[in-house]
Amino acid sequence: MQFTINRNLFLENLNNVMRAISSRTTIPILSGIKLDLSETELVLTGSDTNISIEIKIPVNDDLKVISTGSIVLPARFFSEIIKKLPGKDFSFEVKESFQTKITSENTEFMINGLDANNYPRLPEIPNDSAFTLSGKTFREIINETVFAVANQESRPTLNGVNFNFSQDKIKAVATDSHRLAQRTIELENGPETKAKLVIPGNSLVEFSRIIGESDPEITVSPGENQVLFTIGNLAFYSRLLEGSYPDTDRLIPTESTTEAEFDLSTLARALDRVSLLTHESRNNVVKLNLDTENQKVKMTGDSAEIGNVEEELPFKKLTGESLLIAFNPDYLRDALRASFTDSVVMNFTQPLRPFTVVPGKDDVEFTQLITPVRTF
Amino acid sequence: MQFTINRNLFLENLNNVMRAISSRTTIPILSGIKLDLSETELVLTGSDTNISIEIKIPVNDDLKVISTGSIVLPARFFSEIIKKLPGKDFSFEVKESFQTKITSENTEFMINGLDANNYPRLPEIPNDSAFTLSGKTFREIINETVFAVANQESRPTLNGVNFNFSQDKIKAVATDSHRLAQRTIELENGPETKAKLVIPGNSLVEFSRIIGESDPEITVSPGENQVLFTIGNLAFYSRLLEGSYPDTDRLIPTESTTEAEFDLSTLARALDRVSLLTHESRNNVVKLNLDTENQKVKMTGDSAEIGNVEEELPFKKLTGESLLIAFNPDYLRDALRASFTDSVVMNFTQPLRPFTVVPGKDDVEFTQLITPVRTF
Repeated sequence: MQFTINRNLFLENLNNVMRAISSRTTIPILSGIKLDLSETELVLTGSDTNISIEIKIPVNDDLKVISTGSIVLPARFFSEIIKKLPGKDFSFEVKESFQTKITSENTEFMINGLDANNYPRLPEIPNDSAFTLSGKTFREIINETVFAVANQESRPTLNGVNFNFSQDKIKAVATDSHRLAQRTIELENGPETKAKLVIPGNSLVEFSRIIGESDPEITVSPGENQVLFTIGNLAFYSRLLEGSYPDTDRLIPTESTTEAEFDLSTLARALDRVSLLTHESRNNVVKLNLDTENQKVKMTGDSAEIGNVEEELPFKKLTGESLLIAFNPDYLRDALRASFTDSVVMNFTQPLRPFTVVPGKDDVEFTQLITPVRTF
Repeated sequence: MQFTINRNLFLENLNNVMRAISSRTTIPILSGIKLDLSETELVLTGSDTNISIEIKIPVNDDLKVISTGSIVLPARFFSEIIKKLPGKDFSFEVKESFQTKITSENTEFMINGLDANNYPRLPEIPNDSAFTLSGKTFREIINETVFAVANQESRPTLNGVNFNFSQDKIKAVATDSHRLAQRTIELENGPETKAKLVIPGNSLVEFSRIIGESDPEITVSPGENQVLFTIGNLAFYSRLLEGSYPDTDRLIPTESTTEAEFDLSTLARALDRVSLLTHESRNNVVKLNLDTENQKVKMTGDSAEIGNVEEELPFKKLTGESLLIAFNPDYLRDALRASFTDSVVMNFTQPLRPFTVVPGKDDVEFTQLITPVRTF
């Protein structure tokens, strides 16, 4: 196996494959990256068993094949080495016993490789139920829900976002059973038959980084227990979470008795100040006093050690019954960070029933649910 | 004690005092910041016993005194609170039992304070042997030596930089006994009587951050076991290290048998690549082969697990006897980072004798010494 390649071209693709490689893998060969060279393309593969990424670099002026073959190299070092090579191009040659020579200008590295035959095979996923998606839309819906997934072993399906793809929309729900985020976005060319996929939060975070700030077309190919996302020459495989996802629709209250609308950044900044103290207390709880009669909203927090804080909150609207409610400020902070409208509406029923946070705009389907805390 | 103050003015000064406050203090009151208000000024004080910082904010349009007094407040929270307050100004009032009310717009914090009478007093340092210094020069000489101080309990004086101030120059030396950095800079108005001060590396790092990128005038007042640096309304006290600093002059070789001059960035980048592998090996050693006969320089490194690397190094000059020498690449990396000339000259004698790294420019007095490693 021998080739020469433009270093920047290689590095750009290598950086994406590196996202699949975990430093904590228990399978030694998975701390490596696989390089597979044919007459027509160089294929880079990385995997941590949950996520696998494969990128195909076609042979052209920037990639010259001298002889085909394959090898596995220690991913972290290999990528550091390529980053620090002096030249515009580098040469790559596998010698005896998987030793690999990498040369650029006056620098010559000889790296111990591994037999690529021992590298696990990627799953084969049929593309007969594949459909396409806007990268921007998918990234948006990931960022608006993924923070609410659970991080625990006890109910593994809650560690993923529950996606429902249909012909005209995507609905995504995530919950850790204390708070929930549900977002629906309209689609133009959704799948003909509905697809239900529970995708691990970690996979989605990595994939949203690969999507980046642009708006590439994504092909989604749902498989048995894996899903394949394709963007151009990049294939991203994620494990799916098995087991039934809870029916979350029934959790979302349809009526309310107290409603308050706040400017998003005013509310976020007040919450940030109040959390300074609540983060130091044993139970991390803020209290919100909605006094509809006197048209006043007060937010308070305290820490026995440090002191207490009281904010009078300006609001855009306050209607219904007066209410005193207590909750974890971090859940509201996350909900506000995921919000993208200028204002948010909070809908309450009783002090111990979950309340919703929705956009201050009727045409956006985004509902966040937060469970309050009993403080008396 | 009661006043109102411009928030940005206060924050700017508070941030500098915070540099003296350690999160790991064992003396509870030192996790606080002292505020002392008279009719003419507000004095902020922070200390971790090694370093103390005191800043005086004069009373003016931005600081209005309502009543004088003093208090100690938990430094980290107080600073976070001030940072996040909503308004341009804030009001500060000490109530009963050291409770302190901080208000800004609709936000009101009540913080538990401590009795300022229990705060330790700063040392009194006479200014009869004080002299002034350019901030830029002092920051430069700190950055060129402080990285070479030791970080160990066994020989405490080595944890400081040994400064010798005289009428026409400063000489600073730091060594951890494996490498040494010695820099001499000319002065215009040095002290009339020589001053010898061993100042802890940590104090110097903090003080160089306070000096910043500008060139303020610094007044240096040497005391018995403390030194006081003054910049405008800021006073910085540092503990001095006691015990005699070793005579380092005799360590620096005055002759050499092999000399090599390299472009600084070419050498630094090659070293960076070679270290990729040596950092993974048990002994972290690079080998430098200076072949004066064939006019070739080669740098090599290896790790049994990963592989090896060989660089042919371009040089500007290579004279004297051929030599093979091995050393810790991190010492040379630090030496090159502290260097500021386009090229450096390395002077060698024998494979097991320390070598020097000096600027490729005759008029700069900067000598770095590195002890090689025995590898055979």
